[in-house]
Amino acid sequence: MDERAALDVVGGLVDAAGDDTAVIGDTMLTIDMLHDETDFPAGTTPYTMGWRSVGASLSDVAAMGAEATATVAVYGAPSFEAGPLEAFVTGASDVSGSVGAEYVGGDLDGHQEVTVATAAIGTTETPILREGASPGEVVCVTGALGRSAAAVRYFEQDDQKQANDLFQFSPRVAAGRALAPKATAMMDSSDGLARSLHQLAEASDVGFAVDRDAIPVDPALVEVAGDQVVHEAMTFGEDFELVCTLPEGVIDSVRSALSIPLSVVGRVIESDAGIHLDGEPIRDEGWTHGRTP
Amino acid sequence: MDERAALDVVGGLVDAAGDDTAVIGDTMLTIDMLHDETDFPAGTTPYTMGWRSVGASLSDVAAMGAEATATVAVYGAPSFEAGPLEAFVTGASDVSGSVGAEYVGGDLDGHQEVTVATAAIGTTETPILREGASPGEVVCVTGALGRSAAAVRYFEQDDQKQANDLFQFSPRVAAGRALAPKATAMMDSSDGLARSLHQLAEASDVGFAVDRDAIPVDPALVEVAGDQVVHEAMTFGEDFELVCTLPEGVIDSVRSALSIPLSVVGRVIESDAGIHLDGEPIRDEGWTHGRTP
Repeated sequence: MDERAALDVVGGLVDAAGDDTAVIGDTMLTIDMLHDETDFPAGTTPYTMGWRSVGASLSDVAAMGAEATATVAVYGAPSFEAGPLEAFVTGASDVSGSVGAEYVGGDLDGHQEVTVATAAIGTTETPILREGASPGEVVCVTGALGRSAAAVRYFEQDDQKQANDLFQFSPRVAAGRALAPKATAMMDSSDGLARSLHQLAEASDVGFAVDRDAIPVDPALVEVAGDQVVHEAMTFGEDFELVCTLPEGVIDSVRSALSIPLSVVGRVIESDAGIHLDGEPIRDEGWTHGRTP
Repeated sequence: MDERAALDVVGGLVDAAGDDTAVIGDTMLTIDMLHDETDFPAGTTPYTMGWRSVGASLSDVAAMGAEATATVAVYGAPSFEAGPLEAFVTGASDVSGSVGAEYVGGDLDGHQEVTVATAAIGTTETPILREGASPGEVVCVTGALGRSAAAVRYFEQDDQKQANDLFQFSPRVAAGRALAPKATAMMDSSDGLARSLHQLAEASDVGFAVDRDAIPVDPALVEVAGDQVVHEAMTFGEDFELVCTLPEGVIDSVRSALSIPLSVVGRVIESDAGIHLDGEPIRDEGWTHGRTP
């Protein structure tokens, strides 16, 4: 059973499962686990690990349209040395501070494989869920896709400076706050845009018609992999942009409230019309942690 | 560098580190990671894993004297099957429900070693910290120590029923709430009573004089290991009882508010008088996750 099928089992047992965070009153709570084999290519610095792990949880808070309040982490490793630990904590603190949250500590765990668990809390009285999209609206993406895909290429080329810079993404908390008053459905793109579209479609009972030319591809991916990279940008995942649906009429006013680009990548259509890119079905493929051995 | 020395490094970088949970306004937030090699002996059922992992985070909330609100978990494993997953989630839900909290979901992660990360949030306007104990007060322990030490013996003897029952501990949330109005310092005994005393002593700048005969040893440990087990009960750890300091005069009224035993195990003394058991120094030994390879 892969991760998605297993999540369906879990979802059947827990009411609150299914959005980027759990919602408890006006508090958002999320937890994530990252580890060496699938998340930290050789060359990932401890600072980047701290930034990226805690950033993943902050991205979940952003996807609810919430303010980010605080973060914690457990750093699991075979041994502990002061330098790398300090760098990890500094990365965790810096990414938290970059979105107005506070890194408030955590724990250590002796663990053969480097494994990091992070949690974040946030606040909003009106969380934006994955359900709520309606045919006739548009579907949008913040920033650009493919940054992590590009980073992994640079890690493979031993260009660790470039790779680590690309791996330190900006959690879209401010964008989530700006989108929240108008967005009808929202989630992050951590499993890739293709999978996000399938998950929004399932939760909202809609379909999507997406325009290939409108997909915002990060220049870093084009530079390292050429310009035939839309599929990779849509499916590699781990990008932590926001994917949301909006009434078409609000795009201009929403853009004026954002400090990052917002691309209208397509339209919300009826669910029986499916999910497609320039008329071709978009397969439900992307980042599935269950695929590892 | 072992876990405690490493935690000192982390503590120097994060203001909020050092108590059982982080404190953000009136919200308590904690995260824990448990894994096969050190936390789940062969024979541990998925239900017990869910109960125990989430229970560890609830114990942290209890140690602050807070109400427990909600829990989340990530279940990491090489593969996912419906039965064990459902059992894990049921254990996580049951332990949460047992203390008035709600298990609100989580995530899955493909991971070679079974690894569980849990987080919990709770609420109190007056968290009880590790600092605050004063000479002249008494030091107390809820329940009894050695339950997990006994469980591990039963796992070794392949008595998995008994072992799993013992491994499903009751997080002391209700006791923490009852103790909070009077306790001057509090933490849980997850690293063992000996280590808890050292940590309370350091945070409060006090010493402790403990009476061997007053240490509450769980009958399960006596049954499986004989009656020379006080040292094991004090150092094995993973028991998740509360260790707290109280003015002596409040013991009777506090006990009447508790539904579990509260043992007065000794007195708070001046810090330069040290930490001892019947006059013999208590070494700072116990559960150190950094001791694993």
